[in-house]
Amino acid sequence: MLNELLCPETIAVVGASRTPGKVGHEIVANLINGGFKGAVVPINPSADEILGLPCHADCTRYGKPIDLSVVAIPSKHVRKAVEDSLAAGAKAVCVITAGFKEVGPEGAEQEAELARLCSAAGARLLGPNCLGLINAHHGMNASFAAQMPRAGAISVMSQSGALCTAILDWATQRHLGLAKLVSIGNKADLDETDFLTAFTHDDETRVIVGYLESIGSGSGFIKAAESAASVKPVVILKAGTTAAGWKAASSHTGSLAGADIAYGAAFRQSGIIRADTFEALFDCAMAFAMQPLPGGDRVAIITNAGGPGIMAADSVEQAGLHVASLAGSIATALRNKLPAAASVGNPIDVLGDADPERYAAAVNAAQDDESVDAIIVILTPQAMTRPAETARAIAGCLRGTKPVLVSFMGGREVMPGREELVASNLPDYPAPERAVAALKAMCEYAAWRRRPTRIVTRFPVNRRRVERIITRHVRTGRRQVGEPAAKDIMRAYNFAVPAGDVAFTASTAADVATRIGFPVAMKIVSSDIVHKSELGGVRLNLGTPEAVRDAFDLMMIRIARAVPEARLEGVYVEQMCPPGREVIVGMTRDPQFGPMLMFGLGGIFVEVMKDVTFHLAPITAGEALQMLKSTKSYALLEGARGQAAVDVRGIADALQRLSQLVTDFPQIAELDINPLLVGKTGTEPLVADARIRLSQTGAQP
Amino acid sequence: MLNELLCPETIAVVGASRTPGKVGHEIVANLINGGFKGAVVPINPSADEILGLPCHADCTRYGKPIDLSVVAIPSKHVRKAVEDSLAAGAKAVCVITAGFKEVGPEGAEQEAELARLCSAAGARLLGPNCLGLINAHHGMNASFAAQMPRAGAISVMSQSGALCTAILDWATQRHLGLAKLVSIGNKADLDETDFLTAFTHDDETRVIVGYLESIGSGSGFIKAAESAASVKPVVILKAGTTAAGWKAASSHTGSLAGADIAYGAAFRQSGIIRADTFEALFDCAMAFAMQPLPGGDRVAIITNAGGPGIMAADSVEQAGLHVASLAGSIATALRNKLPAAASVGNPIDVLGDADPERYAAAVNAAQDDESVDAIIVILTPQAMTRPAETARAIAGCLRGTKPVLVSFMGGREVMPGREELVASNLPDYPAPERAVAALKAMCEYAAWRRRPTRIVTRFPVNRRRVERIITRHVRTGRRQVGEPAAKDIMRAYNFAVPAGDVAFTASTAADVATRIGFPVAMKIVSSDIVHKSELGGVRLNLGTPEAVRDAFDLMMIRIARAVPEARLEGVYVEQMCPPGREVIVGMTRDPQFGPMLMFGLGGIFVEVMKDVTFHLAPITAGEALQMLKSTKSYALLEGARGQAAVDVRGIADALQRLSQLVTDFPQIAELDINPLLVGKTGTEPLVADARIRLSQTGAQP
Repeated sequence: MLNELLCPETIAVVGASRTPGKVGHEIVANLINGGFKGAVVPINPSADEILGLPCHADCTRYGKPIDLSVVAIPSKHVRKAVEDSLAAGAKAVCVITAGFKEVGPEGAEQEAELARLCSAAGARLLGPNCLGLINAHHGMNASFAAQMPRAGAISVMSQSGALCTAILDWATQRHLGLAKLVSIGNKADLDETDFLTAFTHDDETRVIVGYLESIGSGSGFIKAAESAASVKPVVILKAGTTAAGWKAASSHTGSLAGADIAYGAAFRQSGIIRADTFEALFDCAMAFAMQPLPGGDRVAIITNAGGPGIMAADSVEQAGLHVASLAGSIATALRNKLPAAASVGNPIDVLGDADPERYAAAVNAAQDDESVDAIIVILTPQAMTRPAETARAIAGCLRGTKPVLVSFMGGREVMPGREELVASNLPDYPAPERAVAALKAMCEYAAWRRRPTRIVTRFPVNRRRVERIITRHVRTGRRQVGEPAAKDIMRAYNFAVPAGDVAFTASTAADVATRIGFPVAMKIVSSDIVHKSELGGVRLNLGTPEAVRDAFDLMMIRIARAVPEARLEGVYVEQMCPPGREVIVGMTRDPQFGPMLMFGLGGIFVEVMKDVTFHLAPITAGEALQMLKSTKSYALLEGARGQAAVDVRGIADALQRLSQLVTDFPQIAELDINPLLVGKTGTEPLVADARIRLSQTGAQP
Repeated sequence: MLNELLCPETIAVVGASRTPGKVGHEIVANLINGGFKGAVVPINPSADEILGLPCHADCTRYGKPIDLSVVAIPSKHVRKAVEDSLAAGAKAVCVITAGFKEVGPEGAEQEAELARLCSAAGARLLGPNCLGLINAHHGMNASFAAQMPRAGAISVMSQSGALCTAILDWATQRHLGLAKLVSIGNKADLDETDFLTAFTHDDETRVIVGYLESIGSGSGFIKAAESAASVKPVVILKAGTTAAGWKAASSHTGSLAGADIAYGAAFRQSGIIRADTFEALFDCAMAFAMQPLPGGDRVAIITNAGGPGIMAADSVEQAGLHVASLAGSIATALRNKLPAAASVGNPIDVLGDADPERYAAAVNAAQDDESVDAIIVILTPQAMTRPAETARAIAGCLRGTKPVLVSFMGGREVMPGREELVASNLPDYPAPERAVAALKAMCEYAAWRRRPTRIVTRFPVNRRRVERIITRHVRTGRRQVGEPAAKDIMRAYNFAVPAGDVAFTASTAADVATRIGFPVAMKIVSSDIVHKSELGGVRLNLGTPEAVRDAFDLMMIRIARAVPEARLEGVYVEQMCPPGREVIVGMTRDPQFGPMLMFGLGGIFVEVMKDVTFHLAPITAGEALQMLKSTKSYALLEGARGQAAVDVRGIADALQRLSQLVTDFPQIAELDINPLLVGKTGTEPLVADARIRLSQTGAQP
């Protein structure tokens, strides 16, 4: 996929220059120095040749078709250059030039025009405002970053060009191989989703790494990410996570960043490994590129120093992994190969004077042992330590069945060892904690890969009825759906809702109450009144027709006095709810990722303790239960502190129905069932109150 | 302090050897190669000279007094060597040899004997089982680690010898200077507290760094740490924090590690900067050693790349610091010095082609601006970037008034710049997040240094009465103090406690009730019965003398039937408590750090949400209030969600009284006031129930 861009045969460089240091010169030089095997065509009207290559005035003068055109000229000339490139048959255009969307509306319009031109010609556009791209396996450095990485297994896409140069510089120093490196720039056409898909289908790419500040289409990206993660690891650093970071993001790229919580949910669900820091991004990528996935989370630690072994053990526990102990017979066999003072407990301490053979014996024992899923090897440079030989010895006994992550701690003395490790595909970290963090990401990803098949239950519902209610609201321009209509919607999706009806006079109110049975509650219906209780708009526990009539008349008088301008839509007369545990289920629609479900226990648990969880819709039964379990207060639902256990499956069921409703109706922008009353196991939870807000347009946002 | 050890004139090396690679050879070689100016005296009965130095059979044969004796011979000969050393006048002995406490009880006894010998001779003992020590300013490498660090400002003590070698190797590569490096080994005599104190008084030490697995005397250490932190930063990595880490710690050093939560409280209170990882330890140490403390937490970010600027801004916000914006006039002045496309917002983006002058202009602007407390400078290697010149330009404009932390991202291309930075005392980090984490530690430490003077209130109490109650319990071997006596203790410390008394017959129970006033509660008193309510041992809200008499008789019958063997100590008749908000205040005595106070809201907040805070006693009024505020549920005490606000000062007062009680009486091992009932502002909180457990011995633990 994207072959014309990633594997072109003929590359034009528009703006090629004879002056070293100029971008147009560097790109030509980098293509030549990087070992590009195809044709490089410098384009410059005022030069005959550049770096020994014949130069042309524009792309069409070359005479033969061009696959990829790399444009690096002042922004006002870019449009013409793109047109010429397309006329010369280019199926991919990379615009390096800056000065488009990021400088204002005029630039944005020019940028959109470039995308339209390419699209009309059936070509793809990378950039503008980018560093270019590299395909190490194709010998192509079509960027103005001078360093060409070794051909390797990690493909990188980055929304920051400068970060690409830092990554290249760092990878070169560490001898780390890359497959593709793409600076995605302003994303006028090709974006993160396109490259995610392209890298998924690229056999040379074993790990996908991304630095992103914004995501264009949340749902498209998540779908592509889930497909990608199902076959290879995807590690993303999403910057702009906090308010300040977000502010920087918008001033930097002019694009809107989604809320961080939605990113968290989306990444988690689609199997993306989220890196929190720049170092974590490549710490994880190295581990995934070099080692197999672990089958579980039991970690053996091998060390020649007690202290760092303890640090590693601390990290393993803090990461929620487990420090494994060797099985008895394997421990005994290993003990026979080590000095008496060594420890075969966990950490396995091969002692300060350990030679390469001791390390190999310990690594072999840990590989033999079925109670070990992953291995961390630590080395400190002591008097007798031979880092390079030890690295080779470890590499020599690897079986590729369990991940082995290494931390050679120190500086110059261990450097020869560190280089051997990278050369042997052993990921190496400057401190044990970093190795453990990378291993944690591996364990989580492996667990995601092992997840059960997702089956989203479809419940039989009365969809048409909801459609009618929503259409009626949209037609009359009402975005807030009042309680009676919201509860009708809930009923249509087979939520249990207390019986109730709207009354317009005192006597019909009494009739309704008599029909549904006493005691009843009464609530004023008016989209103009938010705080109903405070204005006397709510009455509870009315036991007789007289009480209902009195309440109706009093409500009318008081509301009319307090909010004379309010438009009243009647009084909702409803059966009193039986007591139950209050929980909240809700939905807010994220601009990037769509409907995001929320769960929490009612009242203080949501408002003071902020003990809530989120999950993107649609949701499966297992995921809904997991949502409940990941709140701290879940224990209360299970009956902690002498509370009655409640029907948690009923809540999970409500989350699934809610998921279906908000997936069916993109017009629903926000929805709160607050509270949902939950009773003991076997009873159905009851929608005590519901609020729905429709999106501004009434259509899909 | 410890001058004989840290700055000796004459050093004997017992076990000096002619064989390279042997520890006794390496130490002599390291002393010579490190540039030691004093006398080095090799001791070996079977050699005449070693590395050109005349050799002696034992220390006493040298003829002149020895200051420091470094012993590296098999463990069975160590005692004799120590005796000879002391006989030769050594005031400090460093035993490198392993095979003592860490191998078992016999080794522990031999180790204790070495300490006794030294102590009797008025000498100090370092080790055994250590790497030795280095004083870079004294040109002394009395260790078997070959690398001699540059003389610098950071002094290190480490409970892991291997970590010392890794630190040395790393410091050498980074050109980072050290003052002292001490491997503290088994700590038979000199321990972390001694070196903390010695480094505090050492003018060459500006930052104290420690790697510790255990702490011998918690209170001594904390006192020394507080003194140290009051004049210079103390950064500690405490390993063995989790269960697995702790297990590793005990097998490694044979010493008992305290609970992590107590370490957290102790470190926080005494101003110790706690590093969570090995990298963080030196990330912080570098920042403290090289830069001034910040006056506040407003951070300016200067970058030549948008992406890393966003990452830094994210980190700043996540760390709880603030991203600062330049003041208007300074921003305008800076704008005039930068290209039009640059941003003087925050991050300050000097653009990808930034030259050293642009960086200098931005750093100067941030230094000029009073709304900036600290500066983070980021550089990525782009086409026009000159890392070394940029490093020099930044260094050239530093005023030493605000901390400047730098992140030159990349590998080979930025390396010349990174070396310039270290040479100019600019702390440099491989990624912006690490710089921000170090800056956060600086801000927290600076805030601790600015903390108000601690004034612990002493309340007038009846101490003698508590003494009598405790003595009575200790004499009769009772460790559990029953409710009536526990409440007497509370009363003696002027806690408000409901009126109540113990009755032994139904009619005295009725008399007590009549005297204190109805309604009353009744509770069985017996240290043999834990779950009183379940056995019918608690009755509430009794309104008449008849009800009290009935309840007494029923209680006696039922308890006798259910637990015939229980020893009954009467029935406690007590005034019913008025309703109030339930909170818990308590104390548990940590083996390392002594009494640790606890606070939390009652019931689910403690048991399910684990929303509690800890603080070591004694506590000040401000600290007690801070304890309350650092729980999530604090908002409820302030009246969130329509709850009545309660008297928080009353709770803080209770914590202070509790602090005084448990400080006065080390015999109290545990104490729970659960619940303490708190009413609205102006009312006194009421001790509804209290439990006290005395320590096993009844004396100070």
